[in-house]
Amino acid sequence: MKLPAGFRAGAVAAGMKPSGRPDVAVLVSDRPASIAGLFTQNRVQAAPVALSRRVVRRGTAQAIVANSGNANACTGPQGVECAAQMQREGAAALGVPRASVAVASTGIIGVPMDPTVVGAAIHVAAGRLRGDIEGFARAIMTTDTRLKRAEAAVAGTRIVGVAKGSGMIAPEMATMLAFIVTDAAVPPDALRAAVKGANDDAFDRISVDGCMSTNDTLLVMANGTAGSAPEGDFRDGLASVMSALADQIVADGEGATKVIDILVRGAATSTMARLCARSVADSVLFRCAMNGGDPNWGRILAALGASGQRVDPDRIGVRIGGEDLCVAGGRGPGRLQVAERALRKRRVTVEIDLGLGDATSRLTTNDLSAEYVRINAEYTT
Amino acid sequence: MKLPAGFRAGAVAAGMKPSGRPDVAVLVSDRPASIAGLFTQNRVQAAPVALSRRVVRRGTAQAIVANSGNANACTGPQGVECAAQMQREGAAALGVPRASVAVASTGIIGVPMDPTVVGAAIHVAAGRLRGDIEGFARAIMTTDTRLKRAEAAVAGTRIVGVAKGSGMIAPEMATMLAFIVTDAAVPPDALRAAVKGANDDAFDRISVDGCMSTNDTLLVMANGTAGSAPEGDFRDGLASVMSALADQIVADGEGATKVIDILVRGAATSTMARLCARSVADSVLFRCAMNGGDPNWGRILAALGASGQRVDPDRIGVRIGGEDLCVAGGRGPGRLQVAERALRKRRVTVEIDLGLGDATSRLTTNDLSAEYVRINAEYTT
Repeated sequence: MKLPAGFRAGAVAAGMKPSGRPDVAVLVSDRPASIAGLFTQNRVQAAPVALSRRVVRRGTAQAIVANSGNANACTGPQGVECAAQMQREGAAALGVPRASVAVASTGIIGVPMDPTVVGAAIHVAAGRLRGDIEGFARAIMTTDTRLKRAEAAVAGTRIVGVAKGSGMIAPEMATMLAFIVTDAAVPPDALRAAVKGANDDAFDRISVDGCMSTNDTLLVMANGTAGSAPEGDFRDGLASVMSALADQIVADGEGATKVIDILVRGAATSTMARLCARSVADSVLFRCAMNGGDPNWGRILAALGASGQRVDPDRIGVRIGGEDLCVAGGRGPGRLQVAERALRKRRVTVEIDLGLGDATSRLTTNDLSAEYVRINAEYTT
Repeated sequence: MKLPAGFRAGAVAAGMKPSGRPDVAVLVSDRPASIAGLFTQNRVQAAPVALSRRVVRRGTAQAIVANSGNANACTGPQGVECAAQMQREGAAALGVPRASVAVASTGIIGVPMDPTVVGAAIHVAAGRLRGDIEGFARAIMTTDTRLKRAEAAVAGTRIVGVAKGSGMIAPEMATMLAFIVTDAAVPPDALRAAVKGANDDAFDRISVDGCMSTNDTLLVMANGTAGSAPEGDFRDGLASVMSALADQIVADGEGATKVIDILVRGAATSTMARLCARSVADSVLFRCAMNGGDPNWGRILAALGASGQRVDPDRIGVRIGGEDLCVAGGRGPGRLQVAERALRKRRVTVEIDLGLGDATSRLTTNDLSAEYVRINAEYTT
C-alpha cells in the first residue's frame, strides 16, 4: 500500500524478536506534520508512551520510530533513557529535530532493551526508506497473524493506516499500536478532535481479552503535502480507516475463531449500556460458549447481572442470529437451532435489550479458544 | 463422613443430569435449627435464591432440598412456582413445616425445570435418609471432579460441611452451593455473625473465573442436639470448615492445574488491596502465564495498572517462589529459574507489595487452561 505523498518508511530485523523477523521501523515525513495521538489508560505505562505523549502535546512532529519484541515497559530509568536514545538516533538518522520524533514499542514487558542494538537498527532502517507501508507494518507485528492496514481517499488527499495487536486488547486502548498518516493539511487541533471523535467507533469499542496494556499508542500525522480536504470528509475518511483497523485487530484476536458484535440497547444510561456490553465481553464463560457455538444466553444474563449496573432481570431480552432466545428474562420463542447455525459463522451479532431506556452501546470482541490459552501460556518461556 | 447428631440426608438420581448421576437431595434436622446464609450478589438471581433468602430471614429452619443439573434461573414465574413446589414437596416428604425448608439449585440457566419430576424425586430421596453426608454431596456436583467436604469438632459438638462448584466462581459468592450443619446450639444471631465473619477468609477470597453466578447459596444450620459450644471455639471451627471448603473449590477449578494464592500488601486501603488482587486474578493473561509456568511479572503489573486503583508503578514489587522478580516497578534481582521451578508445583504464592501503606488482601485462584475452555465451550450442546 502506497504511503500518502511526502511520507516514507523503512524497517529492519535487529534480532529483538526470537523469530528473526523485522522488528525496528521508522516512518518520516518530508516536512513537519500535525500530530495527534491516544495512549493507554493503564497506570503502568511504558517509557515510550510517556515520551510520545510529550511529542503529541507539541502538536507537530516529523517521524515515528517503533519496535516490536520488547515493550520497554517496567524497565525503570534505564528504559526511559533507552526510549530517549531511540528518539535521538531517529532524529540523527532521519535528519529531523529530536523533539519531532515519536517512539512506540510493543512486546515483552519488564526486560531491559539494549539501546545500542536498537540505535544501530534505527540507522539501518533509515537507510532503507521506501514509499510503501508494508515493511513498517510487518516490523510492528508480535502475535499478529495478519498485516493490518487500511486506506481512504478524501478529495485528492489520502489517509493510510497500519496497526498491530491481537492480545491484551480492551476498550480505553489496548496492546495496540496504530499509526495513520495523511497528506491532507489538517491543523493540530482539528486533527486531535477528529481522532477523538473517530475513536468511539474504533479502538474504543473492541475487546479481545479485557486486558489493558502498558503500551497502547495511536499516532496520526498529517503533513499537508496534497493540500487540504473538507473537514467533514476528512473526519469520515479518518473514522473509516480507524474503524477498519480496529476490526482487523479483533478479527486477528489471538486464537479467535469468530468476531462477535455485542449490541446493547434499551439501557437507562450510556454508561449502563457500555458497562453491560463490557461485562458480557469480559465474561470468559460467555466467550467459551461462543467458541463452542453454544447459544447459552444464561451466561449473558449472569454477566449482565454481575455488571454492577442496576439492570432489571425481568426486562432483559437476548437475540442471537435474529432469534429471540430470551424474552423478559426467561426463555423466548426463538429457535435454538437457528441460533446455533448463526454461531457457526465467522461473524456473529448478539443483541441485548435491557428494556429500561434508550441508550445503546456496541462492542466487538471474539471468542476464547484453547488456542488463546496455548499462545499466552507460552509467550515468554 | 458422619453427619452431626440429629441430621440425616438422602439423595436420588432423577435424570436431570445427562450423566444419570444423583441430582436431587434432601437434608433434614430432627428438630428446628438455627439457620444463617449468604447468597449471590448478582442482580440476576435464581428462583430458589429468593425463596431461601426468606427462609434464612426467619432464623430457624429444619430442612434443605437441593438439586443439580438445572439452576432454575431465568425461568420466570414458572421457575418461582417450581421452587415453591420443591419446598412444598420437601415439607410433605420430611414431615416438617413448609416455611422451614430451604431450596437450592445449580446447573444450566434458562431451561424450565419439570416440577413433577423433581417433586417425585424429593419423596424418593426423603425415603432414603442416612446418617452420612456423601450421598448428598455427590448429588449437588456438576462439573466438579471431586467431592468437597470438611469437618471440625468443637467441645463435644461437630460441624460438617459440603460444597460444590468449580466454574463461575468469583468473590462475593459464586456458582457455589455450600451446606454446613452442626449439632452445636447456636442462636440465629450468633450463627449469622459467625458465618459473616468466617466468609472473608473463605468463599469471599476465591475466584476461578471471575464470573458471578445466579445461584450461589451457603446455608448453615445448627440444631443444638449435642449441646452448646463456647462461642469463640465455634467460630473458629466454622471458619476452618468454610475455609477448607473454599480451598477445595479452587483446587477443583475447571481445568485447573494449580492453585495460586495472591497476597497483596502495602496497599493504601483495604479496598485497594482487594481490587488489585482481584484485577490480577481476573486477568486471563496472568492466568494463562500461570498455566504455562511462566513467571511473567509484567502481566501482573499491567493488571495492577488496569485495576482502577491509584497504584504507583515505581513502588511495586512482585515476588514469586520467594524470588524478587520485580522491585520498584522494574526487574529485580530474583532468579527466574527458581521462580519457574516454584510455578511447576501444584500450589503457588504470588506476593505483591504496592509500597503505599499497610493494607493487605489475599485471594486464591487458579490457572486458565485449554481444558477450561473445552469444558465451557461444550457445557450445554
